[in-house]
Amino acid sequence: MELWYTEKQTPNHGITTKISRTIHTEKTDFQQLDIIETNQFGRMLVLDGMVMTTNKDEFVYHEMISHVALNTHPNPKKVLVVGGGDGGAIREIVKHQSVEKAVLAEIDGRVIETSKEFFPEIAGELGNPRVDVQVVDGIEYIHNNKDSFDVIMVDSTEPVGPAVGLFEKGFYQGIFDALKEDGILVAQTESPWFNAELIKRVFKDIKSIFPITRLYTVSIPTYPSGLWSFTMGSKKHDPLEVNEASIKNLETKYYSPSIHKSVFQLPKFVEDLTKE
Amino acid sequence: MELWYTEKQTPNHGITTKISRTIHTEKTDFQQLDIIETNQFGRMLVLDGMVMTTNKDEFVYHEMISHVALNTHPNPKKVLVVGGGDGGAIREIVKHQSVEKAVLAEIDGRVIETSKEFFPEIAGELGNPRVDVQVVDGIEYIHNNKDSFDVIMVDSTEPVGPAVGLFEKGFYQGIFDALKEDGILVAQTESPWFNAELIKRVFKDIKSIFPITRLYTVSIPTYPSGLWSFTMGSKKHDPLEVNEASIKNLETKYYSPSIHKSVFQLPKFVEDLTKE
Repeated sequence: MELWYTEKQTPNHGITTKISRTIHTEKTDFQQLDIIETNQFGRMLVLDGMVMTTNKDEFVYHEMISHVALNTHPNPKKVLVVGGGDGGAIREIVKHQSVEKAVLAEIDGRVIETSKEFFPEIAGELGNPRVDVQVVDGIEYIHNNKDSFDVIMVDSTEPVGPAVGLFEKGFYQGIFDALKEDGILVAQTESPWFNAELIKRVFKDIKSIFPITRLYTVSIPTYPSGLWSFTMGSKKHDPLEVNEASIKNLETKYYSPSIHKSVFQLPKFVEDLTKE
Repeated sequence: MELWYTEKQTPNHGITTKISRTIHTEKTDFQQLDIIETNQFGRMLVLDGMVMTTNKDEFVYHEMISHVALNTHPNPKKVLVVGGGDGGAIREIVKHQSVEKAVLAEIDGRVIETSKEFFPEIAGELGNPRVDVQVVDGIEYIHNNKDSFDVIMVDSTEPVGPAVGLFEKGFYQGIFDALKEDGILVAQTESPWFNAELIKRVFKDIKSIFPITRLYTVSIPTYPSGLWSFTMGSKKHDPLEVNEASIKNLETKYYSPSIHKSVFQLPKFVEDLTKE
């Protein structure tokens, strides 16, 4: 018997990938959670029918949501991840020696628990003494922690279901307030090919709140279109003004000091999304 | 009835896309040729079961195989496209006023004819008086035209079937000989995610022939993994030494002077493919 998992990434298009078996399946209080073993990308975490991460390409998303902001801030000590229950962003954050405390605010505790069990290479730093795992609503958490963080990362699912509020302007204002005076926000903001209107809106919203707003893209083969965007809002530090030579070398597979700035050089049709 | 076209891009992974109808299907002397109408990407050309181009994302491939090399050469007058029967590269090449003659050397005349009929937006410049369309074997053509071209583009299908010879070292040597003394080769070289060994081999082969060798990547959602590579071999001019400010603005949707150099800044795992 051949088993293929198909994700319709839009109503008209998707990926299909061969699997050897379903490892785990459950309905949590928040979403459908499935873990499958694929032939092409290794183990895959699927939430509400959408690929969240795989063992083979997870490094792109997790390195790139983390290191661009952390190497833009001159001395990040306190970092918050909203969402990101798989622990991949946390794993990258604790590579930075300056970080004294990394808080994970994940609404669905089952994502954390199953990631620890089935994705040890991704979730392995969730027990690090510098890491504070909170099973809470990220929106509530930021409203209860004003002026607290150097960097906040929004590592959310797609803007449906539990994550809808994580793409709203009020949320970005809450993050602004939860950041210290020179803090930086970075949020995953979907595909320029399939979510152009969302990117335009979020960029405009963040730009209306933060003095510095930047969009960058990366290649993630299991995400819709393969091209993924992150939007950065910064109170003071500009990622384009970082001295590349001063960036410490980290153990990475995608990020490097030499792409720190080049990822912000966008294809014309993507650059145009930032110009309204 | 719902129709979905699925391409297994590897034995274990692929894309699946909804179609409204099959527009054309034939077996040419060289390959199976199908044209379908997709909901997501508009009209799609499929050769031997592999997506070649679509109306919605074709601009990436055609702009990026053309303008990087043409804006690296200071005065490209004579340009050759090997393959590329859909005419997309030719359309971009004739945007450069310096180009006096663009030769298309396509082995399969049916690709040219069906593209003219069903993809007029892509093939529209094949009748341009500066364009010379030759239905010939590209390998033979370059061996009969030594020291003739400023830029040669290898716009081939995947390295199976008729295109196998277009990924061999002897072919790149033939291109070197067909180029003038300051000529530039650019070849499409597949996906860094799925074809790492091929990219390593081709890069090494081209590097053993050309003084300057560079790899760059672009985002093409209908191509395997969404990340696509091009390898450039140059006798004299380095794309990284171009003065961006001197690049003429062209009507483009992906290429821009500001990404001319940044596309060469590669993710670490891709950069590593060039280092052996």
